[in-house]
Amino acid sequence: MKFLVINGVNMNMVGTRQTSIYGIDTLQDINDKITEVAKNIGDRVDFFQSNIEGEIVECIHNAKSYNGIILNAGAYTHYSIAIRDAISSIKTPVVEVHMSNVHAREEFRHTSVLSAVCKGVIAGFGTDSYTLALMALHNAK
Amino acid sequence: MKFLVINGVNMNMVGTRQTSIYGIDTLQDINDKITEVAKNIGDRVDFFQSNIEGEIVECIHNAKSYNGIILNAGAYTHYSIAIRDAISSIKTPVVEVHMSNVHAREEFRHTSVLSAVCKGVIAGFGTDSYTLALMALHNAK
Amino acid sequence: MKFLVINGVNMNMVGTRQTSIYGIDTLQDINDKITEVAKNIGDRVDFFQSNIEGEIVECIHNAKSYNGIILNAGAYTHYSIAIRDAISSIKTPVVEVHMSNVHAREEFRHTSVLSAVCKGVIAGFGTDSYTLALMALHNAK
Amino acid sequence: MKFLVINGVNMNMVGTRQTSIYGIDTLQDINDKITEVAKNIGDRVDFFQSNIEGEIVECIHNAKSYNGIILNAGAYTHYSIAIRDAISSIKTPVVEVHMSNVHAREEFRHTSVLSAVCKGVIAGFGTDSYTLALMALHNAK
Amino acid sequence: MKFLVINGVNMNMVGTRQTSIYGIDTLQDINDKITEVAKNIGDRVDFFQSNIEGEIVECIHNAKSYNGIILNAGAYTHYSIAIRDAISSIKTPVVEVHMSNVHAREEFRHTSVLSAVCKGVIAGFGTDSYTLALMALHNAK
Amino acid sequence: MKFLVINGVNMNMVGTRQTSIYGIDTLQDINDKITEVAKNIGDRVDFFQSNIEGEIVECIHNAKSYNGIILNAGAYTHYSIAIRDAISSIKTPVVEVHMSNVHAREEFRHTSVLSAVCKGVIAGFGTDSYTLALMALHNAK
Amino acid sequence: MKFLVINGVNMNMVGTRQTSIYGIDTLQDINDKITEVAKNIGDRVDFFQSNIEGEIVECIHNAKSYNGIILNAGAYTHYSIAIRDAISSIKTPVVEVHMSNVHAREEFRHTSVLSAVCKGVIAGFGTDSYTLALMALHNAK
Amino acid sequence: MKFLVINGVNMNMVGTRQTSIYGIDTLQDINDKITEVAKNIGDRVDFFQSNIEGEIVECIHNAKSYNGIILNAGAYTHYSIAIRDAISSIKTPVVEVHMSNVHAREEFRHTSVLSAVCKGVIAGFGTDSYTLALMALHNAK
Amino acid sequence: MKFLVINGVNMNMVGTRQTSIYGIDTLQDINDKITEVAKNIGDRVDFFQSNIEGEIVECIHNAKSYNGIILNAGAYTHYSIAIRDAISSIKTPVVEVHMSNVHAREEFRHTSVLSAVCKGVIAGFGTDSYTLALMALHNAK
Amino acid sequence: MKFLVINGVNMNMVGTRQTSIYGIDTLQDINDKITEVAKNIGDRVDFFQSNIEGEIVECIHNAKSYNGIILNAGAYTHYSIAIRDAISSIKTPVVEVHMSNVHAREEFRHTSVLSAVCKGVIAGFGTDSYTLALMALHNAK
Amino acid sequence: MKFLVINGVNMNMVGTRQTSIYGIDTLQDINDKITEVAKNIGDRVDFFQSNIEGEIVECIHNAKSYNGIILNAGAYTHYSIAIRDAISSIKTPVVEVHMSNVHAREEFRHTSVLSAVCKGVIAGFGTDSYTLALMALHNAK
Amino acid sequence: MKFLVINGVNMNMVGTRQTSIYGIDTLQDINDKITEVAKNIGDRVDFFQSNIEGEIVECIHNAKSYNGIILNAGAYTHYSIAIRDAISSIKTPVVEVHMSNVHAREEFRHTSVLSAVCKGVIAGFGTDSYTLALMALHNAK
Repeated sequence: MKFLVINGVNMNMVGTRQTSIYGIDTLQDINDKITEVAKNIGDRVDFFQSNIEGEIVECIHNAKSYNGIILNAGAYTHYSIAIRDAISSIKTPVVEVHMSNVHAREEFRHTSVLSAVCKGVIAGFGTDSYTLALMALHNAK
Repeated sequence: MKFLVINGVNMNMVGTRQTSIYGIDTLQDINDKITEVAKNIGDRVDFFQSNIEGEIVECIHNAKSYNGIILNAGAYTHYSIAIRDAISSIKTPVVEVHMSNVHAREEFRHTSVLSAVCKGVIAGFGTDSYTLALMALHNAK
Repeated sequence: MKFLVINGVNMNMVGTRQTSIYGIDTLQDINDKITEVAKNIGDRVDFFQSNIEGEIVECIHNAKSYNGIILNAGAYTHYSIAIRDAISSIKTPVVEVHMSNVHAREEFRHTSVLSAVCKGVIAGFGTDSYTLALMALHNAK
Repeated sequence: MKFLVINGVNMNMVGTRQTSIYGIDTLQDINDKITEVAKNIGDRVDFFQSNIEGEIVECIHNAKSYNGIILNAGAYTHYSIAIRDAISSIKTPVVEVHMSNVHAREEFRHTSVLSAVCKGVIAGFGTDSYTLALMALHNAK
Repeated sequence: MKFLVINGVNMNMVGTRQTSIYGIDTLQDINDKITEVAKNIGDRVDFFQSNIEGEIVECIHNAKSYNGIILNAGAYTHYSIAIRDAISSIKTPVVEVHMSNVHAREEFRHTSVLSAVCKGVIAGFGTDSYTLALMALHNAK
Repeated sequence: MKFLVINGVNMNMVGTRQTSIYGIDTLQDINDKITEVAKNIGDRVDFFQSNIEGEIVECIHNAKSYNGIILNAGAYTHYSIAIRDAISSIKTPVVEVHMSNVHAREEFRHTSVLSAVCKGVIAGFGTDSYTLALMALHNAK
Repeated sequence: MKFLVINGVNMNMVGTRQTSIYGIDTLQDINDKITEVAKNIGDRVDFFQSNIEGEIVECIHNAKSYNGIILNAGAYTHYSIAIRDAISSIKTPVVEVHMSNVHAREEFRHTSVLSAVCKGVIAGFGTDSYTLALMALHNAK
Repeated sequence: MKFLVINGVNMNMVGTRQTSIYGIDTLQDINDKITEVAKNIGDRVDFFQSNIEGEIVECIHNAKSYNGIILNAGAYTHYSIAIRDAISSIKTPVVEVHMSNVHAREEFRHTSVLSAVCKGVIAGFGTDSYTLALMALHNAK
Repeated sequence: MKFLVINGVNMNMVGTRQTSIYGIDTLQDINDKITEVAKNIGDRVDFFQSNIEGEIVECIHNAKSYNGIILNAGAYTHYSIAIRDAISSIKTPVVEVHMSNVHAREEFRHTSVLSAVCKGVIAGFGTDSYTLALMALHNAK
Repeated sequence: MKFLVINGVNMNMVGTRQTSIYGIDTLQDINDKITEVAKNIGDRVDFFQSNIEGEIVECIHNAKSYNGIILNAGAYTHYSIAIRDAISSIKTPVVEVHMSNVHAREEFRHTSVLSAVCKGVIAGFGTDSYTLALMALHNAK
Repeated sequence: MKFLVINGVNMNMVGTRQTSIYGIDTLQDINDKITEVAKNIGDRVDFFQSNIEGEIVECIHNAKSYNGIILNAGAYTHYSIAIRDAISSIKTPVVEVHMSNVHAREEFRHTSVLSAVCKGVIAGFGTDSYTLALMALHNAK
Repeated sequence: MKFLVINGVNMNMVGTRQTSIYGIDTLQDINDKITEVAKNIGDRVDFFQSNIEGEIVECIHNAKSYNGIILNAGAYTHYSIAIRDAISSIKTPVVEVHMSNVHAREEFRHTSVLSAVCKGVIAGFGTDSYTLALMALHNAK
């Protein structure tokens, strides 16, 4: 099986910014861990990161060949109806992930405009949020 | 007369995604139909599509030479004050169009931040929404 | 094809009241223009105007023989669930029209309780809002 | 005892419109059933239907000689403070009825501006909503 | 000077309904008192009452020959954008009156959709609300 | 036919508390009256009362053998999504009843989280609310 | 009879500030006109103006000997629950007045926290708002 | 390691009710699958289910000896501040799980009063929501 | 005099949970202090604690023999209309108490659905909140 | 110990106004009772009353030498962020008191902008609200 | 040029209260710094501070001779429509300043009722907020 | 010291669009003025403008070497949580600036999602808003 991990806006700063919230793993560290878990269960994972809403939209458009998408849209989670519509435009299941428990942070982070069109949501487990999503997609086959 | 048709985010997927809502015409099919109607009334139409909010903004900035703009901003309709301000920055009249009747869909699609600075709005007629807007701009001369 | 144009409350005053918003065409002028356009495409149009909500409701009840209705409900647009239910009670497609761009006016004019049960909406083109709606219904056959 | 059944806007379409919601009984069918039940318990029932808010108001004004009113105001239920005030202007008890379970439909149907000044509310039982209201008024003597 | 007093929905019941709120003067009594005051200052007053929103709208349309209108729209005050638009369609000044102090009653009576397009508002003085409005219009010449 | 009457929180106090609202019939009196009416039409009725939300939930779970449930959930009506979900978990039709006209009382009593998943609602008729619900279920067979 | 006119915050600036809204009469001009009208009907009027909320409160406390108070609280109208409570603490009837039609101005001016405890409200007639209030109190004896 | 799975209100009906939402696994089936996964990673899992809010609260109070709690509170998720406070009263990490994607269902299911005091949230993966939570807690050691 | 102290949900954890908010006194310590104060003024106090909403309701039902109730409903304070109705069903005065200053904590703790039917409220004084309530009830005789 | 009792706007009218709400004790009577209680426990109490928001603010600024403040701000409780900030500017603990149970009165009295920065709140016990606050402060030493 | 610095409620406490928010400069220190900066650019500055809303209003009324006003209204910023109207009553430009970044503090501090009628706003720079405002007014000549 | 001025969406149109709001200085004019002021105080300023939200985000990510950022995000100010998070991801202080007084314009411009994570805000002084921000950052060293 082949999965795509899409990281959205500001996720390139993970491991350097606000480490008390996001931990000290860089995005490369996170990707390495996901790759390792994927290998163990015989799957392949590709990675994409962009700070530009429209590029994330296009990445989703082009992701039809994947068995599933793991999406951490960052701040776009809270207002990008554009990304929501992109998810609706494909059949591939998408799992929404967050490293932090967004519900324990500012009020505006409690609302996701994406969740309703995703298969499921996983939040609060740091790097493990991604690997749990991988398992979820792997098992959902 | 010379008009510009701007299609926003996810509109490149039309005809392939959610066909029960948007029909089976691809964006190229739609553009061909608009061109044909324009020819019949002696007008010229140019086309632009982008998934990136800022590129749509810039396209509007550079559209001053046109007699009118037909704008289907897609999901950006509902939150892009940036596009709204771009429309306010030019004198060219803009007609907001939607293929589906947005008012018969999810609550968040009932609000457009663009309408107040457009000349008018046409929604619900599929590909015809564009050609009706063309007529509207043509007649408004 | 046979269409019905229904004008609602205060529309008998058009051309005399608030001409900076509605222009100087009287309702008769508008009807004449619609008739002319209809003739050109081989259609017939009938007209009805009432200031009484319940009479508009009944007019809709009795409009089943038409191929489509063009409805400018005036102020009733914003609160008449009665008219909304009347539209739901027939199969004939209804196009909601407004002469002015209601979204550029007072906040309470931004909400239509009718749009969700109409085929589509056209607003902002003065008399042309009606003729564009006629074209829309004509083409939708 | 003598009761008055008032049916409001669009109720003349019952049995023909949206039969999946309202069933196939016409208003005449419904009235016949109510009359039959009334006869069985020795009561008399009169009937009134209007699509015009102000006529319903006046009908209520003139209903003082009845022992009770069964009122299905249709869409006016949700916004006619005029009808509410008419109910307040008489001593005759009014029972608000709905054929469908309005609470299982669109959000705006969950609010009644009439209930607070009625004796009680019965909703969701089709034609039986009327006959149950008749029983309620009959027993309340 | 010539003035028109328009009484709206349920006002024909004044003096008989809810006398603790509206007092025991019937509409005829009220009109007689207004006429008497008008005579004293050399003015003429005509009267109109209707329970039908659209008839009130039309009465306003036809009131251009008057020097001013005294309008107690009853419950329509709180939701009739139709009447509001009728007021906007004429140049004649309109004074909104209420016999009771609507602000001391139910929450929904605190909002008037008419006030913004009227010259002024007088509420809470029973029959005197009308005669004070008459004075206000008389003095405003 | 066999019906179940479920009375929720504080209903054991009926007849003793707030008699101006609920009357002087005790819960036993009410049950006796329902039983009598049921006998007259050849039905059987069982009774359950609990002040504990979870016990009401379980009672509903176990009510599948009944032809219908008459439910007065008391204050739980206004917030118990748990009871709502219990109703959704069975096929047996449920009629929501209230002795008082909840819409004429405090604002928070105007909202029921149960109505949307019930067959219908009857409110305002004291003890008769129950017997009318019985009739409604009896006739709905 | 003896009346007290209380003018609140910023009212000392009337006639000099925002003359397009408030006209060119100074507060002294206004008081003179009120005095003149009072004399004509054999009443006496005293005047008080303060920009300090608490002083207005105290002035109301001490106004028990008057037959009525005419109160233009200025901006305090919209938030001074203190003045509201002061009005509630005395038996003397208070008429709330405004020179401008506050309902045709900014949204926040549409709400008065005072109206509910006043006898009535008069707004929109410039200086005449005061003299009409005087008449209203005079007639209410 | 030792974990506790707490299932709340209506969860005893899983597998029998609304199978299109929750699937056909009974609660016993689900527990068996969790136990199996736990065994594979050398952990022990205990199970508790109750429909009574207060019993869930007490179960949480007594769960201090566990390394983590997997909590599906059912409908209580949306309003039980009592359960929220119970979670705050212990140090043991709690993972909130839902079988369905609550964000794709009714509006009221989009709000959880528990999430802010949980370690994380997993929703939308049916039975796998539980086993993923188990992995999350296992890895978090 | 005889008083009843009712402690609601999670109050059995006081002294062990969140000691920075609630202090280190256990519920037994608190009860001992109340008993001591009661003895000094010649009163008797009984105690009840439950985590189950319905049991608190029933405890209130059965409290008629007491001269007053001191109620700390814990989290139920914020949503239990059931407990509110139980308080309304008895004549015994109830004082609502909170150990912490709920108004200085999360937004949802600022609302109490109980206060309106209690005699008074005391919050923010730790164990003293209870003894002050005892004094209040003692003095109110 | 030395305490300061601050009474805010309209409190000088207590005992004379709205005695059904506030009782017949004048402010002097209340102060005398507080003084008496204070004496019994060996404390001293000073008193201050003003109807002017800014004077209350200044009184709080100058109250640093006291061991605690008992504050009944009257209507200012509901909107004076100025007084709130004054309380924040000193270290002296402040207890907010109300004679009536504000939560059983108008909606706008349910909100206090002061509570969050006070030590605690006592409401509903008439004159005893003050003496209980005195005890609370005395015990908090 | 001549400028006036108006400091509102609680500003006399600056430097002593909440020094982590406002710093340790007293109001005198701040005034000295402003005077120094003014001198350097050849301007004169006068100072006024009051805790009484109405006195601030009057100070603004009398400030017409100044070339500009620097206003830190303190807590009145958030609700004093009285001060807003005072600003509207003069032609002198007013710059609203705040020492702290009000947008990073409590929700209620995010709203200013004054900003809309001021020339501009400067917040977050401690004492420099005043001197920057001085520069702004100086440059705006 | 070295500062970075970031101009966001539509700012490239300044000086040509809506000159009554933004004045006639082009972005180049503005930058020249800032450079001149910077030179006078011995600082260096770099400039960046983009209409693309994600590019502004990345520009902020890369701005760590600067002593401060002056950010006019244009319309993104009102909804870009992405830019907000970018600001949070760096230590460099950011000053939010606006040329116009946004609080005197449309309601939606009154809210900034950026202010809470900025050092301060300056709005309403045209080109001077930038130079004042420069001074603010220069002085804050």
